Amino acid sequence: MIVILKDNPDKKQLANLEKWLRSMNLDIHYSQGSTSTIMGLIGDTATVDVDLLNALDIVADVKRVSEPYKNANRKFHPEDTVIEIAPGISIGGGSFQVIAGPCSVESEDQIKLVASEVRNAGAGLLRGGAFKPRTSPYAFQGMRADGLKLLSAAKAETGLPIVTEIMDLQHLNLFEDVDVIQVGARNMQNFELLKELGKIDKPILLKRGLANTIQELLMSAEYIMAGGNEKVILCERGIRTFETATRNTLDLASVALLKTKTHLPVVVDPSHATGVAQLVKPMALAATAAGADGLMIEVHNDPANALCDGAQSLTPAAFADLMTSVNAIRPFAFTGK
Amino acid sequence: MIVILKDNPDKKQLANLEKWLRSMNLDIHYSQGSTSTIMGLIGDTATVDVDLLNALDIVADVKRVSEPYKNANRKFHPEDTVIEIAPGISIGGGSFQVIAGPCSVESEDQIKLVASEVRNAGAGLLRGGAFKPRTSPYAFQGMRADGLKLLSAAKAETGLPIVTEIMDLQHLNLFEDVDVIQVGARNMQNFELLKELGKIDKPILLKRGLANTIQELLMSAEYIMAGGNEKVILCERGIRTFETATRNTLDLASVALLKTKTHLPVVVDPSHATGVAQLVKPMALAATAAGADGLMIEVHNDPANALCDGAQSLTPAAFADLMTSVNAIRPFAFTGK
Amino acid sequence: MIVILKDNPDKKQLANLEKWLRSMNLDIHYSQGSTSTIMGLIGDTATVDVDLLNALDIVADVKRVSEPYKNANRKFHPEDTVIEIAPGISIGGGSFQVIAGPCSVESEDQIKLVASEVRNAGAGLLRGGAFKPRTSPYAFQGMRADGLKLLSAAKAETGLPIVTEIMDLQHLNLFEDVDVIQVGARNMQNFELLKELGKIDKPILLKRGLANTIQELLMSAEYIMAGGNEKVILCERGIRTFETATRNTLDLASVALLKTKTHLPVVVDPSHATGVAQLVKPMALAATAAGADGLMIEVHNDPANALCDGAQSLTPAAFADLMTSVNAIRPFAFTGK
Amino acid sequence: MIVILKDNPDKKQLANLEKWLRSMNLDIHYSQGSTSTIMGLIGDTATVDVDLLNALDIVADVKRVSEPYKNANRKFHPEDTVIEIAPGISIGGGSFQVIAGPCSVESEDQIKLVASEVRNAGAGLLRGGAFKPRTSPYAFQGMRADGLKLLSAAKAETGLPIVTEIMDLQHLNLFEDVDVIQVGARNMQNFELLKELGKIDKPILLKRGLANTIQELLMSAEYIMAGGNEKVILCERGIRTFETATRNTLDLASVALLKTKTHLPVVVDPSHATGVAQLVKPMALAATAAGADGLMIEVHNDPANALCDGAQSLTPAAFADLMTSVNAIRPFAFTGK
Repeated sequence: MIVILKDNPDKKQLANLEKWLRSMNLDIHYSQGSTSTIMGLIGDTATVDVDLLNALDIVADVKRVSEPYKNANRKFHPEDTVIEIAPGISIGGGSFQVIAGPCSVESEDQIKLVASEVRNAGAGLLRGGAFKPRTSPYAFQGMRADGLKLLSAAKAETGLPIVTEIMDLQHLNLFEDVDVIQVGARNMQNFELLKELGKIDKPILLKRGLANTIQELLMSAEYIMAGGNEKVILCERGIRTFETATRNTLDLASVALLKTKTHLPVVVDPSHATGVAQLVKPMALAATAAGADGLMIEVHNDPANALCDGAQSLTPAAFADLMTSVNAIRPFAFTGK
Repeated sequence: MIVILKDNPDKKQLANLEKWLRSMNLDIHYSQGSTSTIMGLIGDTATVDVDLLNALDIVADVKRVSEPYKNANRKFHPEDTVIEIAPGISIGGGSFQVIAGPCSVESEDQIKLVASEVRNAGAGLLRGGAFKPRTSPYAFQGMRADGLKLLSAAKAETGLPIVTEIMDLQHLNLFEDVDVIQVGARNMQNFELLKELGKIDKPILLKRGLANTIQELLMSAEYIMAGGNEKVILCERGIRTFETATRNTLDLASVALLKTKTHLPVVVDPSHATGVAQLVKPMALAATAAGADGLMIEVHNDPANALCDGAQSLTPAAFADLMTSVNAIRPFAFTGK
Repeated sequence: MIVILKDNPDKKQLANLEKWLRSMNLDIHYSQGSTSTIMGLIGDTATVDVDLLNALDIVADVKRVSEPYKNANRKFHPEDTVIEIAPGISIGGGSFQVIAGPCSVESEDQIKLVASEVRNAGAGLLRGGAFKPRTSPYAFQGMRADGLKLLSAAKAETGLPIVTEIMDLQHLNLFEDVDVIQVGARNMQNFELLKELGKIDKPILLKRGLANTIQELLMSAEYIMAGGNEKVILCERGIRTFETATRNTLDLASVALLKTKTHLPVVVDPSHATGVAQLVKPMALAATAAGADGLMIEVHNDPANALCDGAQSLTPAAFADLMTSVNAIRPFAFTGK
Repeated sequence: MIVILKDNPDKKQLANLEKWLRSMNLDIHYSQGSTSTIMGLIGDTATVDVDLLNALDIVADVKRVSEPYKNANRKFHPEDTVIEIAPGISIGGGSFQVIAGPCSVESEDQIKLVASEVRNAGAGLLRGGAFKPRTSPYAFQGMRADGLKLLSAAKAETGLPIVTEIMDLQHLNLFEDVDVIQVGARNMQNFELLKELGKIDKPILLKRGLANTIQELLMSAEYIMAGGNEKVILCERGIRTFETATRNTLDLASVALLKTKTHLPVVVDPSHATGVAQLVKPMALAATAAGADGLMIEVHNDPANALCDGAQSLTPAAFADLMTSVNAIRPFAFTGK
């Protein structure tokens, strides 16, 4: 870590700073520039609080040389992490999985029907929302606990492991039969939740926040891993930008970049990122080509029912067509070389 | 609400849509444009799910004519809301309050010292972080429950009501002696938390999320108010943009705009927004001039201790100077006319 | 176009508005909502100034139902535009082209060497910067007119058509031997330049501005096409967001969306978008899979010379490898179905 | 400048790098960190191309310690620059100026009327658009050369110096009678134009681009100043963000920050930044309180004519009211202390 000091730093503050740094077992190496002095900090700087350093009157700037994450860092764990979700269903290290299902669980018939359809089309996991984060308190909030029961019923019938979102850690006890717990974009920095999920032994699907950098995403993964749970799946689902033609801006370069920085699997959710059904297939193909370890796709059961024929949901037939194209591209996808 | 249909909409889907809309007691008024058909929805559209409508195959676009928030809407509540925090300490409707204190509670001496200093300089409320949201799991997470006890001690000694952040609703029982519960930017859309805070009778300071629009901020306020708690104070604290010279971009126009859209008090936090001590005073003056109902300012006790001389924290002397300038500008601040 | 009026609009202003709208041969269709009145404008609204309408005291909001661009609009021109750049070198409508070459033209040897290498690897066009937009006045500004001469020499030797950027219309006379004139991101809204380029008969490669929406990109294409030059190639090269891990954020969903909105060819520049060499290949594959009509790739000649081994430039060998992978994915790319 | 090398850099590339750096008369100072090697570059690094350095295979990161701008840098020019626009009309160093006038020059009567009205209300300069950058080729493009003549007529009658925008350097000869030449946000990085404006002896009002950082704004000022023209006035007019409730997001913290980084005057344009008339006054007051050296305000002549009663334009009466409030706040504005 490099600390760039302001010109003529206050002697007392500098002494305080040196004392504090040494108290963290860091060696200090000075180098004198033409206009300012640079401190090189040598040792384990992962625990150093950059904000606090930047906060110092005598400090002009702070520059990390090494990343602040350890468990998620590919440098210290060069091999891809492979997460076994269920017998025969793994993700990462060349194992590619498609997670598919409806935005919300609406009824037993609906979820069972979609489950069998996406399984037949080649999906490896079933998704479905039971607890729904909604911008408006007046909008449907999901079937909640009942929705989880219906997901279990669909799992029992189809054998598909289930992925669903947790919105608050007080609900954690309801998630026993859930195979992969999803942390939504809005909760990516719900640190109390992340800490709890670090104590359990279940894969966590961690979605990138709408305004979060990929380093922040990795730091949130680090929260979970620091607690002992190394089964973290990262998910790119679009960031918020000035462009409003799509709901969010899918940042596929971050997928390729994440693969260089971390050993964790990275999946892409083109449905929520674009919010437009006709963009789901091209973005699914693009994500696959870029080297994603999987996809998360919204599929709805009832094209005849206009109300569910969601802007971001595909019909089972459209999903099956997407799967065919994704499978065709898979052998030619980027592998990091 | 206006629904713009695509050309030649599927008859069955259109029938489904009409049926669903009428089931919500909405009247439908058609008007035929040159290139497309427009449905005007007449009735209470606040509960209509725009995403769902937009999701329809036959729908080209949806446009709200009336806002989706009711309790927070100035249209239905023209008078400014005035929230009494403690006897003689009100905010809103011309009552201006400055909330000041350290980023984190560090010790009893520290918080008591800062509390008396900010009170003497004219602050009306004491702030201090007990539960600290930190990007890194390795950074100081705050004194948590012990920090709340120290805040109570400072309150007892100085008489200043206290404002502190809640990070998870499981901690709510610890906040009994807290006068204003702060919901941080990262939790602005933690809907489960918002719902719980709607059930209690305490003022809530709701900070705008880094990637949230002012309409989303008002919808989050609506979550709290819909539960029955009308004591919501909104806080602009900067949004995330491409500009990195300041930590965030303080959106002061949103303050003036919020005052036209809602009757709730709006305060500004220039400390977190800019992350640079020398920008806190000019932005505090700007926020005051723009008509903010209050300010939230980080003040630290110990300028001699480099470690606490935070980039975004003022010394007590600097805070006193800021208060003098803010008080001088107050009589000339924008009042909505 | 829909104009939403405020409650109780001023009668005189409303009369003025109606008069003005009718003066543009627009029919007005009123519909009365519960809370406000909506005007539907029927006729050719492409020339209506939305800003001006929004500017009216009596107007709450304005909503376009039809797009403001005509020549670029796929609605009025369903077939893909195919642009012939040189005999046997076309782009669009299934013809895919890779434009490759160095960031800057540095010498005759350099540009001729790179030209032959990229041609041998399968590039259809040669790119090279002669006029270089640089943030700093102290940075290399390109070889300018001499650079254009060297590009012509490379074209003469290799037969590759050349693509290079124009920075000011006063240089236009120098571009006679240039096959495709590039308008850089910073000039996407240099309207005086666009108008001039509309008067010539050469393909224009129009890059999306860093803060421009895809509708603004289409409107800039419209400037060129309205002048009579229909040979416009659109280029997605990343937008500016809060994420700094990549130089810009490549918006691939916009490529798929543009293909639905316009008949013009769309190419992608992963080199400038990411600014990181190791991300160029995965993003090139992703762009191809998403249905782009071509790619623009920076290739440098001299891997041994550290100074030129640019973060965003590939070696000829890396480029040849990229071409192999791109060609393998092409048959499986998204085709709009 | 600090160059952070990757682990085990290629010896040949490192030698090339050292040779190149020394060729620029830079001394190299090495310091060895735990995980990587840092090069400190000592000497004049303003002309070093950071992109090129970052581009090197062996370089992990580059960090500027000193700013890349010199002429605009307050470090080398501590005193505020005061620009005399006309006898008795100066800006900067405590001289505050309000530039007011219509968005577009429409007729001789209109511009003369507005000119006398804004002068009587206390404006020091007259603004009016002759060349209008419009997103749509079908929108009114301004009166162009004729508009400049009408501005001169208004200047002759009222004595107000005039400020108007140049869109292309081929029009420069038409700007002889213009007192301050405005470079619009879209042209902030039109480097050919900036170079030409560096050769003349007229104040330049340089508007910040919608996606440009304040450092880029200062680099564009540097382009003008490097040519010899030191009369540059910077203008904050809002940046593009995800928030759509206002046209752009006015970044007032940048005004206070710019005042610390440069000696040039900084003005604020709340009319274009917000695009909403009712937000112009509060933002004008906020900008004044924050220490801006001036304001740029759109004023329209004919409130009775709905069509001109622009969203971002004030009536002369509203402008006079704004001036009264601005003048009241001026004595209490931030002065950098």
